[in-house]
Amino acid sequence: MAFRNRVTALLGIEHPVLLAPMDLVSCGRLAAAVSQAGGLGLLGGGYGDGEWLDREFDRAGNARIGCGFITWSMARNPALLDRALARRPAAVMLSFGDPRPFAAPIHAAGTALLCQVQTPRQAAEAVEAGAAALIVQGTEAGGHGQSLPLLTLLPAIAETYPGIPLIAAGGIADGCGMAAAMMLGAEGVLMGTRFYATEEAEAHPDAKRRVVAAGPGDSVRSIVFDLARRTEWPPEYTGRVLRNRHTERWLGQEAALRAAQAEVAADYAAARARGDFDIAAVIAGEASALIHDIPPAGEVVERIVAEAEAALARVVSQR
Amino acid sequence: MAFRNRVTALLGIEHPVLLAPMDLVSCGRLAAAVSQAGGLGLLGGGYGDGEWLDREFDRAGNARIGCGFITWSMARNPALLDRALARRPAAVMLSFGDPRPFAAPIHAAGTALLCQVQTPRQAAEAVEAGAAALIVQGTEAGGHGQSLPLLTLLPAIAETYPGIPLIAAGGIADGCGMAAAMMLGAEGVLMGTRFYATEEAEAHPDAKRRVVAAGPGDSVRSIVFDLARRTEWPPEYTGRVLRNRHTERWLGQEAALRAAQAEVAADYAAARARGDFDIAAVIAGEASALIHDIPPAGEVVERIVAEAEAALARVVSQR
Repeated sequence: MAFRNRVTALLGIEHPVLLAPMDLVSCGRLAAAVSQAGGLGLLGGGYGDGEWLDREFDRAGNARIGCGFITWSMARNPALLDRALARRPAAVMLSFGDPRPFAAPIHAAGTALLCQVQTPRQAAEAVEAGAAALIVQGTEAGGHGQSLPLLTLLPAIAETYPGIPLIAAGGIADGCGMAAAMMLGAEGVLMGTRFYATEEAEAHPDAKRRVVAAGPGDSVRSIVFDLARRTEWPPEYTGRVLRNRHTERWLGQEAALRAAQAEVAADYAAARARGDFDIAAVIAGEASALIHDIPPAGEVVERIVAEAEAALARVVSQR
Repeated sequence: MAFRNRVTALLGIEHPVLLAPMDLVSCGRLAAAVSQAGGLGLLGGGYGDGEWLDREFDRAGNARIGCGFITWSMARNPALLDRALARRPAAVMLSFGDPRPFAAPIHAAGTALLCQVQTPRQAAEAVEAGAAALIVQGTEAGGHGQSLPLLTLLPAIAETYPGIPLIAAGGIADGCGMAAAMMLGAEGVLMGTRFYATEEAEAHPDAKRRVVAAGPGDSVRSIVFDLARRTEWPPEYTGRVLRNRHTERWLGQEAALRAAQAEVAADYAAARARGDFDIAAVIAGEASALIHDIPPAGEVVERIVAEAEAALARVVSQR
């Protein structure tokens, strides 16, 4: 069985399951694996590195994939967008910033514009930009985001924009979550953390193991890792990471962290370099609590669709 | 149509829809209306007032209802529990504190013990107490609670305790939310905010209107209203209320609020007395974003079941 809806039609895919464009982690190999299994892989264009982008598009080979950007960062070097569009991606996803200034070239290229939103105001901007679909991201998500839980944000946006297909992001790692998101008005899911813990993800094996080991409440949303790596985000965004010694030391001590930033940043960079995740962040969400293995990414796509079917059947049988 | 599952069987009800025992708001009239529509009304025993409890049980008349307590508060006067059990309630719900010391008399009375939990550790305690069902409450909920979103907490607990029926609480106000909760492993829902905005709820009309007016992000979890009304909760709990002038003034300024507590508390008490909700808290959750009217409570029960059926049918048709 398979789901057939506006998202599968829009993106020309078999399963409405998207790979979140996690900065550097969502590499060509991972994106290709998700697309080959019937979903849609999105390269993690992230802060924007043209050479990385070209190389990973190449590595994805013939797989039909897309690409995502951190909008406020890409805005400093919009040539990156042209470079991505030149690869004829299946979709371009813009997150974290006003998409309107970048919509025209994407539409002109005939590429589907996906806009990730975390608030009703952002949804309005995305609709104005002519987004083909909105990716509604809840606070459960790993990495950057805002504070609204998906359970109430998603249906509120679905109610406002019945004409636009929605894709749910944040807190979803299995078919129960996918089926729940569809009940709330989504017609697909975009997952980061679940695909982080796959064979193909470009992440440290220890970091993947921490995702598997984490339980409910083992992630936290803050700016303490951004401060430690000197990545200044617009103030409305915080980033969710797994709790570790660094978060326990600095949560609620942001002023002190800023005061000690030079020293902390040096220690932090060294910890990242040696793969010490007691200090370096594992950028993952609350969905970690639902992840227990590190399979190939294609298996994740197959599994989640089968599980969503099973969840539907289970509830239908209660009537 | 109706759902038939372990929750309807356990509680002997037609629809697995429960009224959250909101302190004072969930009065006899409201509880009776929910039960008469096929759900289960729970009186808001709250901090514990024996006379209120007797009066509201009387006002519920012949309706088969239950009763809920704030465990740490009821623990100061456990005679309240006996007083409630003497009314042969359909269920007793314990929240916010270790239920184990109070389980024996509830079991002895043959009453179903419902335990509300917000963390895996609390779930383990509730299971040890012999809870007949767990009410899993997400951070979306109005009033007191903790920080974990329902979308990931609920399936994590469902995975750990397949043998115990779960009821979802927090962020649910309509059938989409109910169907989503069932996908995540719940077999019923418990709603506060949705029933707050009903005709029978014992709440100020202006407060009900603020629930209707609120959108996504218009509620916030903090302790600034507890400090203003001098209600000291155990530190792991915060309370979600609608944003107003009081929360905007004091959020993040808790130390200053403690320093000015005597004066602030006097102003706050006066504001409550005159129904000024720019200062007094409307204790409601993020589900406010999904609430647009103030119907009779029985209509809420009928509606949510029909909407859940429709959501199921909508997604089933996408296959």
